[in-house]
Parts: sequence; structure tokens; C-alpha cells
Amino acid sequence: MASAYDKLVERFIQLSRLEHALTFLHWDQLVMMPPGGRKSRAEAIAALTTAHHQQLTDPAVEGLLDEAAGQSLSHEQNISRDEMFKTWQRAACLPDDLVSAKSLAASVCEHGWRAQRTNNDWAGFLTNFKEVVNLSRTEAHARQAAQPGRYATPYDALLDLFCTGESSEFISATFNELKEKLPPLLSEIVAARGDQTAKLAGFFPIDRQKKLSTKLMTILGFDFTGGRLDESNHPFSTGDRGDQRITTRYRTDEFIDALKATAHETGHAGYEKGLPQKWSSLPIGTACNICIHESQSLLFEKQIFLAKPFLSFFVPTIHSLLPETKRYSADDIWHGATRVAPGLIRIEADEVSYPLHVILRFEIERDLINGTIEAADIPALWDEKMQAYLGLRTENDYRNGCLQDIHWTDGSFGYFPAYTMGALNGVQLFTTLTRDQPHWQNHFATGELDFVFSWLHTHIWSRASSASSQQIMADSTGEQTNPTHFLEYVKQRYIDEKF
Amino acid sequence: MASAYDKLVERFIQLSRLEHALTFLHWDQLVMMPPGGRKSRAEAIAALTTAHHQQLTDPAVEGLLDEAAGQSLSHEQNISRDEMFKTWQRAACLPDDLVSAKSLAASVCEHGWRAQRTNNDWAGFLTNFKEVVNLSRTEAHARQAAQPGRYATPYDALLDLFCTGESSEFISATFNELKEKLPPLLSEIVAARGDQTAKLAGFFPIDRQKKLSTKLMTILGFDFTGGRLDESNHPFSTGDRGDQRITTRYRTDEFIDALKATAHETGHAGYEKGLPQKWSSLPIGTACNICIHESQSLLFEKQIFLAKPFLSFFVPTIHSLLPETKRYSADDIWHGATRVAPGLIRIEADEVSYPLHVILRFEIERDLINGTIEAADIPALWDEKMQAYLGLRTENDYRNGCLQDIHWTDGSFGYFPAYTMGALNGVQLFTTLTRDQPHWQNHFATGELDFVFSWLHTHIWSRASSASSQQIMADSTGEQTNPTHFLEYVKQRYIDEKF
Repeated sequence: MASAYDKLVERFIQLSRLEHALTFLHWDQLVMMPPGGRKSRAEAIAALTTAHHQQLTDPAVEGLLDEAAGQSLSHEQNISRDEMFKTWQRAACLPDDLVSAKSLAASVCEHGWRAQRTNNDWAGFLTNFKEVVNLSRTEAHARQAAQPGRYATPYDALLDLFCTGESSEFISATFNELKEKLPPLLSEIVAARGDQTAKLAGFFPIDRQKKLSTKLMTILGFDFTGGRLDESNHPFSTGDRGDQRITTRYRTDEFIDALKATAHETGHAGYEKGLPQKWSSLPIGTACNICIHESQSLLFEKQIFLAKPFLSFFVPTIHSLLPETKRYSADDIWHGATRVAPGLIRIEADEVSYPLHVILRFEIERDLINGTIEAADIPALWDEKMQAYLGLRTENDYRNGCLQDIHWTDGSFGYFPAYTMGALNGVQLFTTLTRDQPHWQNHFATGELDFVFSWLHTHIWSRASSASSQQIMADSTGEQTNPTHFLEYVKQRYIDEKF
Repeated sequence: MASAYDKLVERFIQLSRLEHALTFLHWDQLVMMPPGGRKSRAEAIAALTTAHHQQLTDPAVEGLLDEAAGQSLSHEQNISRDEMFKTWQRAACLPDDLVSAKSLAASVCEHGWRAQRTNNDWAGFLTNFKEVVNLSRTEAHARQAAQPGRYATPYDALLDLFCTGESSEFISATFNELKEKLPPLLSEIVAARGDQTAKLAGFFPIDRQKKLSTKLMTILGFDFTGGRLDESNHPFSTGDRGDQRITTRYRTDEFIDALKATAHETGHAGYEKGLPQKWSSLPIGTACNICIHESQSLLFEKQIFLAKPFLSFFVPTIHSLLPETKRYSADDIWHGATRVAPGLIRIEADEVSYPLHVILRFEIERDLINGTIEAADIPALWDEKMQAYLGLRTENDYRNGCLQDIHWTDGSFGYFPAYTMGALNGVQLFTTLTRDQPHWQNHFATGELDFVFSWLHTHIWSRASSASSQQIMADSTGEQTNPTHFLEYVKQRYIDEKF
């Protein structure tokens, strides 16, 4: 007779079939669907999401989880059972009416935000946003209450949805060090580099850029028999076993941003493709958390693609497919692609400024969810922190200030820190893996990256969710996430221009 | 309190959400999916198909259908309830083990057929095919037994899955008239036209052909805010409300076939788009049957696109996008596109020969399912009928004979007649609608087709499944499907070359 654990495995495999459908319906919606399909697609996605929630929160699942907790399981099965429990618990701990209310408020707020951002209308936004904040606080308290002892603050319970297993205390400490040391470093870099990092201008046909992205992906290990590259307004990656879908976006007056996005999403896809077959369709077999996911995408984008030796290797391909770039040397392109210029917009930020944008958001959302500040306080705090961290003002400029991001509009509090935890992790992993390969620059200079993929496969990809992100960092690099490596890397890349 | 009928509506709407997911997962599989995705996609589709079957055959549905039969319903609701019953009955009347066994046998047979066709291996095919025939006969008997009185023969029960509402007796009578009158007409046409219908050769870039197809679709009423054109090995159309997806296929040495396929699939999409909103997601709101569906696609392809005045109107667009075609006049292109040349392959057949290919298959599959012939008899019958109807031999040439089609490999008996019933219906509808528009050729010559769309909308599209196909034909043309119109049209187009 099938054990409780075996029955859980069967149930989670069934759930993964619905997830497959949802994944590709979402992909289609963002990449292929004509506008006329919105209504029927929204209805189908809502129905499948409801079915998924019902199947996951079926009382029998809780019973099986209890029963499996008493079963004699292998170490691996125990972890697998715990991951199933976490997945179930996340879905089951909220009352249905809270989920519906938040979903509705988020939808109203996000919809309104699209025009309010354009119109710099903070007051209009605030009306809707207050409801999102209220419901997110309720959600945070409910999640905290459901797992007594797991979360030190309500915010930690939301953080756990994205930066799973990380605590806001650890992230605060990590970010405090960055916050102190990064701004002077940034000023030093801007002063040192001056105007040598001019924009790479020209006209770059999109069909040529597509070929270029495809070539880059192939070098970065992407297998086109197991995936696709397409276009969307915002680059993203998704997929299922054997079918990784990534997107990028092209502009005819620009070619580096599309390649960066391609490299970034190829990193996400590499991680997903490298997850172990043996755990496929089970929670233990999914990516560890977003801090690790972003470490892979950023490592591919920043540490591989933008490494001087790799970019020099790739420049002849750029020159050949986009002949107009021939007036730029490999050095010009590297400088253009690693331009450092503090600005107001997070998604346009360079690698050095980016963490400061994230820290600002982390501090505000943490205090907002924990109730020490209110939604109405955000613009003043934003302006104050932008001045302190980046030396820029956003007073009355909500559009380029606190209205610039979509994340908070739908109540995704706890997501932002993953970007910078990912950046720190990516550098720390890269520092470790290149330490064992003293001639790594020679490999990069010939496009040989197998040693990177192999190291990442062993230390990151193959572990999936079988350990926490900090455990994976400690096992693979000898210590937990430590911003020292990132700060050292920034000096080497942007001041010494070593790689 | 919701009535039984209301509850059924709610259940069928829920089923339509799963159908939406299945529709677009299938589309993706045929148009977008890389080969690596096969396994996870097959698993997801199987799971959703099972869920759909379970929800449709849930005992509560039968109870609600019974209860609704006793309810006081409007005329329209009564028809709607009957269509729900038919849908439920089709799914519920077969034992699960028969469905699984046929699905497995079909999958084995179809998979083997791909190589057996190439290798001309009838004996190898027959081994697998016998099982498909046995299980299809069992299925036919089970379907017949489930609705006593509805089906005169077991074959009629399978026919009803595709040519819903048609009887094999009516189709036999219709086809007998064609079988008698078409072969001499075909010989006369071939003799009269001789070599004037040479092939339209050249090199035609695919990106230009795509633009051409897009322009044709727009003239044929396709709305790109509510649909897409893509490519696939076999052109097809699918979709859901507000999102019609069609495909075509291009070859660089050919441009007419892609346009024909585009026009054909645009006809299917026009019908689907024209189905009434008020019945959306309900069985009454779906397309009537495949005989009507094919009438729309063939009317768009043969009677509109290939009409001399329309093609003459469109030729300047062809000349402009494919300059190499400028050496062909509108008349050359029309002759090339309406070439008549009897051959062995159904899917390559011209409009005049095509029905003879279908009649041959109809007669064989009817007798096969009704048990008056056996699978082993097929090659000899094929050869005999090919000689009688088309004057061609297929002895020992299984590849270009009875192994050429996919339909029987997966047990889709009853599908073939829909192609020719569709062709007859298409011509009959066109004859009627142009009778009311004596100057139709002038409209076609300027690309004005609104009167066609409007007529079809009123008489066909808006009726969906609210009446049988023969009722719709009788209401719109004054009589049931009558091959006289097709025979007359063939004379006018191919002998008199009137349009």
C-alpha cells in the first residue's frame, strides 16, 4: 500500500501539471496573446489557480502531511516532506476572504498605478495603496501567527515568500554594511571614470540583434532543443522540465541592454534546467529561493557576460552581426556596458548603484509592514534616503520616485531585497569558483565556460530546495552571504578595471 | 436558488476553462514548443484531459441533466440542455478501460505509421491497425447501444462525432450522385484545360509571404487584435473567444499553397469569431459540426480567394510583395492556382478530384466499422476504387495509397466525409448568397466582402449549434445538402471559366 509520503508525492505531481498549464498560459499571455484574448485567458487562469489552491489545501493533504511526519523517512524524504509542508502551509494559512480581498485591492491598485505613475499622482495612488498595505499587514500577521517562532516580525513572514529562509535581521545587517561603504565607493568610481563611458550609439536592426542574443545564449549553455528566446516588454524567464522560455527586448538604437537581459535570463534558465530530475515536480526540486535565483542570473549577466575577457571574446561576433559597432573597440564596448551613473530609476541602475536603490526600498517596506511607518510617509522617506544613499532628490517627483515600481502595487512586499542578496551571492560564488581556477580569464577569453556551469551545477543547481540559501552559500563558499566580496569586486572591476 | 439548468451552465463554464488551457497548450505544442518539452507537456495535457473527463462525467451532471429535462425551460434553453446532454453522453457512454485501450492502441499505431508510411510497410502497419479497428468497432457499438434509435449503423455513431447530426445513409446517397457525375466531368476538364495551368515557379522569400498572408487575412475579415497567424507543419486553426490562432506553411519555391491555406484557416477563424457571445462556453454556442466548419473554410479558400475577380483584385498585392511573380499575369496566377490534375494524394488534390478521394475513404471506413470488410481488405479496395473514380493505380504503393493519411491511425473514423460535405455546403451557401447579389463579382473585384461576412453571420455563424447542419442548410439555402450545386459550380468554374 502506498505510504502517506508516496501519496503526497502523487498529489504534488498532480499539482505540478496544473502549474505547467498556468506557466505556459502566463508565458503565452506576455509573449504571444493578442489583446482580444485577455478576458478568456483571465477567466481560465483564475479557474486553474482556484483548482490548484483547492487541491493543495484539500484537508486530506494536511492529514497526509501529519501522517508522513510520523513515518520513517530517509533524510532526503524528510526534507522533501518539510518542503511540501511549507508549500501547503503558505497556501492554507490564509482565510479565503483575505486572499480574495488582497487580490482585488492589488488589481485595483496596479491598474490605477499605470496612469497615476504617468500623471505623477501620488494622492490618487495613496487612496488605493492604503488598502493594499492594510491587507498585506493582515496577511503578514496571519502568516506569522500560523508559524509561531519562525518569524521575528510580520515583515519576515512576507520576506519568506521570496527570500525564503532569510531573516530581515540578517538582511538588515548585511545591507547596513553596504549602505555605509558603497556610497563613498560610488563617488570614487564616478570621479575616476568620468566621461570615458559614453553611450554606444547607432542603428542596430532587430533581426541581427536576435541572432546575436541566440549566439550569446548558446555560448552561455542554453540548449535550443529545450527552450526558446522570444520578446516581451519586460524580460523574464519561465518554463518547465525540458522547455525553458526566456525573453529579452530590443531597441534599434541600443544593443547592450538586450544582450545583458539575454545573459541574465539565460542564467535563470540555466539554474532551472540544472535542477535535479529525481525531484522533478516536487517542492524539494524547485529553485531554492529568489536570492539564489537572482545570484545565477546576475552571475551570468555581470560576472560572465560583462567580464572583460569574455566580452572581448564576444565582440567579434557583435562586430560581425552589427557592422555599425565596428567603430567601437572591445574596450569601448566594455566601458559602455559597465557605465556607472547614479540615477533615479532602479531598473536603469548600474551594478554599483543598484544595491542602494534596493536598500532604500527594503527599509521602507520593512517598516511599513511592521507598522512603524505609514503609507503616507513614503515620499518623504524616499527623498531623504535617495539623498543619503545616492545624492539625488525626488521631492514631488513621485513618477521617478516611489511610484516607479510595480512590486508594491500588488502587495509583493519582501521581494526587493532578493535583487541585492542575489547580487551579493552571485559575486561571492564567482569569487569562490574563480579562486579555484587561477587561469579563469584565459578560459573566458576563448568562451570556455564549462568549468563555471559544472561548478554551479554541483554547488547550486543540483541542490534545488534541499537546503536553505544560507546553507548553500556556506557549503559552497565557506561562509554565509558577506558583502565584503561584493565591495572588493566593485573596487577591482570599477576602479582597478581588472576584469 | 439556482435551477438545475443554471447549475449545468455553471459546470459547463468551468469545463470551458479547462478546454481553454488545453486549446492553448495544444497550439503551443504545435507552433512554439521545443522538442525537449514533449514529456512535461504530454503529462500536463493528460492530467487536464482526465480532469475534464472526470468533471464532465461526474454523476451529479447526469442528475442535473435529468432534473433540467423536467424543468420548464425556454425553447433556446431546451436546445442548450440537449446539447449539454449530447456532450455529456459522448463522454459518459464509454467505459474508461475502452477509452484507455483505444488511446494506447492509437498512439502505438500512429507512432509506427510515421516510419511504416515512409517504408511502404503495409504488413507492419496492419499488425497495429487491426487493434485500432477492433477497438473502434467496440466503441461504435457502445455508442450505438447508448442511444438506441439514434444510429442506424455502428458507423453512424462514429460519424456523429465529426459530422454531428448527419446519417451515413444521407451521405451515401449524396456521394453516390457525385461518384457518378464527377469522374466524366473531371476527364472533360483535364482534356479542356490541357497545359495552360503550368506551375507558378520562382523564389519567394518567406518574410514577404508572411506579409502577403497577413494582408489577405485582413481583407478576409481577420482582426489581428483578436488573433494571430503563425507557422506549423500542417496548417490549422484553434482558439477561444477573442483569440483566434491560425497557422499556414511557407515554401520558398511556392506562394499559392500558403495563401490558400491562409484563406482556408481564416474561414475557420471567421466562423469561430462569429459564434454568438450569449452562448459562449456552452455546448449550444460551439460550431455546429465539421461539415459546416469545412464549408466556411472552403468557401473562404475556393469560392472567395480563388474567385477570378477577387484574385485579380489581390494580384497587384502579390506582384508588389513578391516582385518575381510579375512575370505571371492575373490570369496565369488564376490558372495556376486552379490547376486540375488527378493524383494519388488527397491533400494535394484539386477541388474537382478531392471529393473522389473522400468518397473512396468514406466507403471503406463505413464498411470497415460496420464489419462488412476487414482491415486486410483495404489495399485491394483502395486500388479498385482509385481506378474506378480517378483512373489511377495504387497496387503495392501503400505509401501513396492507404497509408497516406493520419486519420485512421488514431481511430478517427467518420471524419473524412466532413471534407466533402463541407465542400458541397460551401458551394451551396455561396450559390445562394451570390444569387441575392447579382453584382457580386464587382464587389469581389474591389475586395468588398462585407456582404459575404454579413450573410454568413446571419445564416451560419450566429446559429452555432442551435440547429442541425441540415436544418441550417435548409433554412439558409432552401434545401438540404444537394450535390447538384457543386457539379454546376465545377462546370462554371473549370469548363466555362466564369469565375
